[in-house]
Parts: sequence; C-alpha cells; structure tokens
Amino acid sequence: MPQPHLEFWFEFASTYSYVAASRVPRLAGAAGVPVVYRPFLLGPVFGAQGLTDSPFNVYPVKGAYMWRDMERLCADEGLAMRRPSVFPRNGLLGARAAIAVGREPWLPDFVLGVYTANFAEDLEISKPEIVARVLRGLGQDPEPVLARTQDQDVKDTLRANTDEAMAKGIFGAPTFTVGTEVFWGNDRLDHALAWAAR
Amino acid sequence: MPQPHLEFWFEFASTYSYVAASRVPRLAGAAGVPVVYRPFLLGPVFGAQGLTDSPFNVYPVKGAYMWRDMERLCADEGLAMRRPSVFPRNGLLGARAAIAVGREPWLPDFVLGVYTANFAEDLEISKPEIVARVLRGLGQDPEPVLARTQDQDVKDTLRANTDEAMAKGIFGAPTFTVGTEVFWGNDRLDHALAWAAR
Repeated sequence: MPQPHLEFWFEFASTYSYVAASRVPRLAGAAGVPVVYRPFLLGPVFGAQGLTDSPFNVYPVKGAYMWRDMERLCADEGLAMRRPSVFPRNGLLGARAAIAVGREPWLPDFVLGVYTANFAEDLEISKPEIVARVLRGLGQDPEPVLARTQDQDVKDTLRANTDEAMAKGIFGAPTFTVGTEVFWGNDRLDHALAWAAR
Repeated sequence: MPQPHLEFWFEFASTYSYVAASRVPRLAGAAGVPVVYRPFLLGPVFGAQGLTDSPFNVYPVKGAYMWRDMERLCADEGLAMRRPSVFPRNGLLGARAAIAVGREPWLPDFVLGVYTANFAEDLEISKPEIVARVLRGLGQDPEPVLARTQDQDVKDTLRANTDEAMAKGIFGAPTFTVGTEVFWGNDRLDHALAWAAR
C-alpha cells in the first residue's frame, strides 16, 4: 500500500496560501506526512464559477475581513505581512517556476519566497526579475529555472494541474487533498494531516 | 474594565453554525469565556452582497464540498448529520424564539436543538410545531416562547441584531466577535476564544 501523502494546492495570488506555505513544511514534517506541491491557477477555477475577479474583490466586506484576518494570522505565525498595492497579482510565472523547480529539496523555500515577495515585500511576482531575486536569495542560479518556465511541458503540467484541481472539486486556495478527500483553506491543514496520518 | 466576552452570531439556516452551536458551550466553558448568543438573519446580509440564495447553492462546487466537509466535521464532533431535503431552511421563527428565550440557562441547548431538528432530523424548523417540539424536549412549555416570537420587541431585536451584524462587517455564519474583532467560521472559534482570553 502506498504511503498516504498530502497534496498542497496553491496559487501565488492567494493570501491564505502564503500562511499555509509557511505552515505546511513544519506541520507535515512533525506529522511525518510527505507533501507533494501542486501549483495551479485560480483564474480558470473562478471563471468556471462565473467569477471574473477574486471573491475578496467581488465581495468587498469579505475582502476587508480577509485583510484583517491575515494580519492576525501572520502575527501569530511570525510572518511579515504588508497589504500589496496590487491584488490579486498574476501567479502564472511563479507557478511555472515552481513546476520547473520540481522536487528539489528547496522547493518549499522557493514557494514561501515568492509568497513573501508578494505579501510582505509588495513586489511584482509576475516579473522575471522578481522570481530571479527569490531564486538568488536561496543561492540558486535563476537562469535555468526561468528558461524552463517557457518550456511546453512545464506549461502543460500547470494546465493539467489546474484541470485536475477542477476535476477534484477544488474551488479555492489553499486546498489540501489526501486521495479523494478535499480540505479547503489554511485552517483545514491540521484536519488534512490527521486524515493522511490515520 | 468589563470582562471580555465572546459574541456568537448564528443563523439557523447555516450548516457550520450547527457544529459551532455544539462546540461553543464546551470550548468557551473550558476557556472561562462568557458567551452572548446573537441570532441574526443571513438573508439581508447576503442580499447586501448581491446574493439571493446561499453561496453553497450559488456555487454548487462549493456546496458539494461543504456537505462532505460537514459529514467529516460532525463525525469528529460526534454529532448526527443528515443532509436536509430543503436547504436553506427559513430560520426566522427559530431566531425569534432564541431571542424570546433570552438569557435562560437552557438557551444553548435550545439553539443546538433547533439545529439538530434541521440538520440531523430533517424537520421544517420554520413551523411552530417543530420549535415547540424542541422546547418540550427540554422540558419547557412552548406556548410562552411561541407567543413571544410575535411580540414587536422580539422582532425588533432580531432586526437590530442583523443590522448590527452588517455594521460590524459580518458576512456569513457562524461568526464570533470579541469587541471589534471579527472571526468568521466554525474553525475560527479557538482563535476567537484565545483573543477573548488574552
């Protein structure tokens, strides 16, 4: 029987995924649950629900709550947070870069680095120079990763991830899956890990 | 300085409020945090957001997730759950009854009883005989409570609760507030209690 694992579905535009990207390595490590990172795009997912913008922009009262909630959660988590001047930012390049990085052991640090650029440093993560900055910050050469983001197989993998997310019934980010079980939201991480570990 | 307390904002149509109504008395009791029950109506709140139905019906993929999530949460909580044949049910009478019950020590049991009728017994909680049944189950005479639901001051209190919910930035249920801090969702109860207790 294959070892149960957690799949972490994230999109770089998603605020709560920033908090999750900080918590996943630590909590999954403590629970002894392997994690597979699954970048995907929320645009097509929201589009299939008839939304043309983030629900936090479509429903401003929900958006106002979310920004305050993020402040509290990031404070609890010891994470820097500054409300970005642009929201949502386009996460396409970051998602392709995460796929290009693949299963390198520093993938979780790269993912958290891109989120930090967006939600703590207010940097335009859709620009190659910002993604390159994150990579250099981890002691990595940015060029091979950025070159790979333009390869067709990387683009196809991101599209396949997004299609698979919709097929699984994923409608937001972050989402955690364990087999066919879906757990939506940063606050479901513990529940998902318990499901994987049982 | 007044003792910090938790306000529990709920609507009888709301699925996750059922789970919260089960957890609030136990967890708030353990934390030593007093609770004030604040019934309100989601209809005007959703209406102000441009929604004419439950978001779980407006966004079916979210609804499908919610029902599975409710199954898991209720199993964890040891709560019976049967997907009701009508959703959402009109919570107006139940909300007025909760206000009529006021600060009686059995209010939390009454609230949980109405939720149980809706989400475990598939009973039509908008009917006076179902609310009466819950009251009798608690050893209470239903007549005075049902009579009070028609009093203008009870109706006005419910309307005022709903207005206050919107003024506080509440957009869904359950919501917990501690002073001006808003915590949305059953999974924020621990966070709200920690805020009240700090």
